[in-house]
Amino acid sequence: MNKFAIALHGGAEQVKREDITPEHAEKFRQGLAEALATGYAILEKGGTAIDAVTAAVKSMEDNPVFNAGKGGSLTERGETEFDAAIMDGKTLQAGAVGGVRYVKNPIELARVIMEHCKHTFLTGTGAEELALANNLKLMPPEYFVTEDKKKAWVEKQKAGNLSEHDTVGAVALDQNGNLAVATSTGGLTDQHKGRLGDSPIIGGGTFASNDVCAVSCTGEGEVIMRGVLAHEVYAIMKYAGESLQSATEKAVKVYDEKLQGDKGILAMDPEGNIAYASNTNLLKRAWQKAGDEPVVALWDDEPKP
Amino acid sequence: MNKFAIALHGGAEQVKREDITPEHAEKFRQGLAEALATGYAILEKGGTAIDAVTAAVKSMEDNPVFNAGKGGSLTERGETEFDAAIMDGKTLQAGAVGGVRYVKNPIELARVIMEHCKHTFLTGTGAEELALANNLKLMPPEYFVTEDKKKAWVEKQKAGNLSEHDTVGAVALDQNGNLAVATSTGGLTDQHKGRLGDSPIIGGGTFASNDVCAVSCTGEGEVIMRGVLAHEVYAIMKYAGESLQSATEKAVKVYDEKLQGDKGILAMDPEGNIAYASNTNLLKRAWQKAGDEPVVALWDDEPKP
Repeated sequence: MNKFAIALHGGAEQVKREDITPEHAEKFRQGLAEALATGYAILEKGGTAIDAVTAAVKSMEDNPVFNAGKGGSLTERGETEFDAAIMDGKTLQAGAVGGVRYVKNPIELARVIMEHCKHTFLTGTGAEELALANNLKLMPPEYFVTEDKKKAWVEKQKAGNLSEHDTVGAVALDQNGNLAVATSTGGLTDQHKGRLGDSPIIGGGTFASNDVCAVSCTGEGEVIMRGVLAHEVYAIMKYAGESLQSATEKAVKVYDEKLQGDKGILAMDPEGNIAYASNTNLLKRAWQKAGDEPVVALWDDEPKP
Repeated sequence: MNKFAIALHGGAEQVKREDITPEHAEKFRQGLAEALATGYAILEKGGTAIDAVTAAVKSMEDNPVFNAGKGGSLTERGETEFDAAIMDGKTLQAGAVGGVRYVKNPIELARVIMEHCKHTFLTGTGAEELALANNLKLMPPEYFVTEDKKKAWVEKQKAGNLSEHDTVGAVALDQNGNLAVATSTGGLTDQHKGRLGDSPIIGGGTFASNDVCAVSCTGEGEVIMRGVLAHEVYAIMKYAGESLQSATEKAVKVYDEKLQGDKGILAMDPEGNIAYASNTNLLKRAWQKAGDEPVVALWDDEPKP
């Protein structure tokens, strides 16, 4: 069997452990395990890394427990807006989408842009029109803005607890030696209309090149974007010759005093090695290498690859 | 006198020389000279690099000869849409704006985002509302979409000559040793609604960090974005220890076979050294170091710093 591997994240945050109930933690673990199995199955059958990361991220977009797609957090207007990006490490082709409201699976739209559009990055209604033209599924606001979510949002506003900024992401190596990455997010709770985070920024939250690594970030988008952290991992590996693990850890800390905030990075190298680094106690994650058992973890005292 | 310097670009393109009339070339030279003088005067008086690049880019946004602001090219709908970004090398603070239609000076909106917004990147009407809230000047479509421009656009469509993708940008070092960068564009002629290029992408078309360099790119945004070329210059300098000139030239060529298209890069290091590199015969440029004469150039057989 040729080497292959997949690794996911479902967001990184510094939180009080007691704020995540056992039931909630279990939902995260189940969601990560499901998405991982979906992606792994594709790789095991000889499918492409791009198909695997698309399917894994789509699974998390459809799961209300993650801040992406169905579970997307609410903006300051009580609406949802989504960003996503995908990149093919073989071709350096990429597709990115920002600020779309009605697309059920933003990662599918990013992929349509990568494969069928002369552009790389589309935003807003211009992006939604491309989704329509390509028969992607659009959903009414009620699909994303459920009564439960709205209630929780109002309560969080009262409590001033609006720092949520989760993201989902996947990196994979397929049996042909190709790396790929996909990242998708519902953004920051209470964010300004039209705000983009790091997820759709090629080099910011999403980057892949077959000869170096594939990277997906999560955390405070503004900080990750300003630090260009996905490309920083690539840079430290390529030009300083550091290992995947070392580069990932160093990228989390680069310009640390100027880039304060929650940062989490998932990266994979062309050998299928996997690295996670974050400055948070919570980093929802799951990974599986060819022939190995899947691993799912949430907290900093649980396993890392 | 402490060291200071400013350098601009007004776009890079591979063109037939005869397609640029002497009158048109003269307008480019005049516009670059004016913008340069505006920025240089600020630095000479001890002003900040951020103020200098803002003023220089604003000057080019107000000049109909450049593809930014007033002179912005028309989308496939015959409208204008603008992207811009600014970054402060001292703080790594940044502001970016994408897909705004009515803001007279998109670079001023990017700066307002950098200085007054909790976010780094705003797009579309969400960004325009922030412009309104901060009393920035908005203009009616007629300001941007003149009869002359519309005529030229129709003629270009007939001729199938729609590859225009100019951008304006500026980098500066001030007397306090701070680097800054600003980039602004009207995008690609005939671009899809909501398309973003590399200009507003921190790391893609715009990046600055005091300890390494300030970089502004121009050319085909999709290619520059996928290559994360502004951050690539930084990476080659910081981690491979190459000089500014060498890093800039190497960044233009990185993954060259996968990143085909017009690419132009302007970069400045903390010593005020200036480097230009492009794979095009036309790279509109101008620069001036403390106490030196200003230089304006367009073609590849004219001076470089």
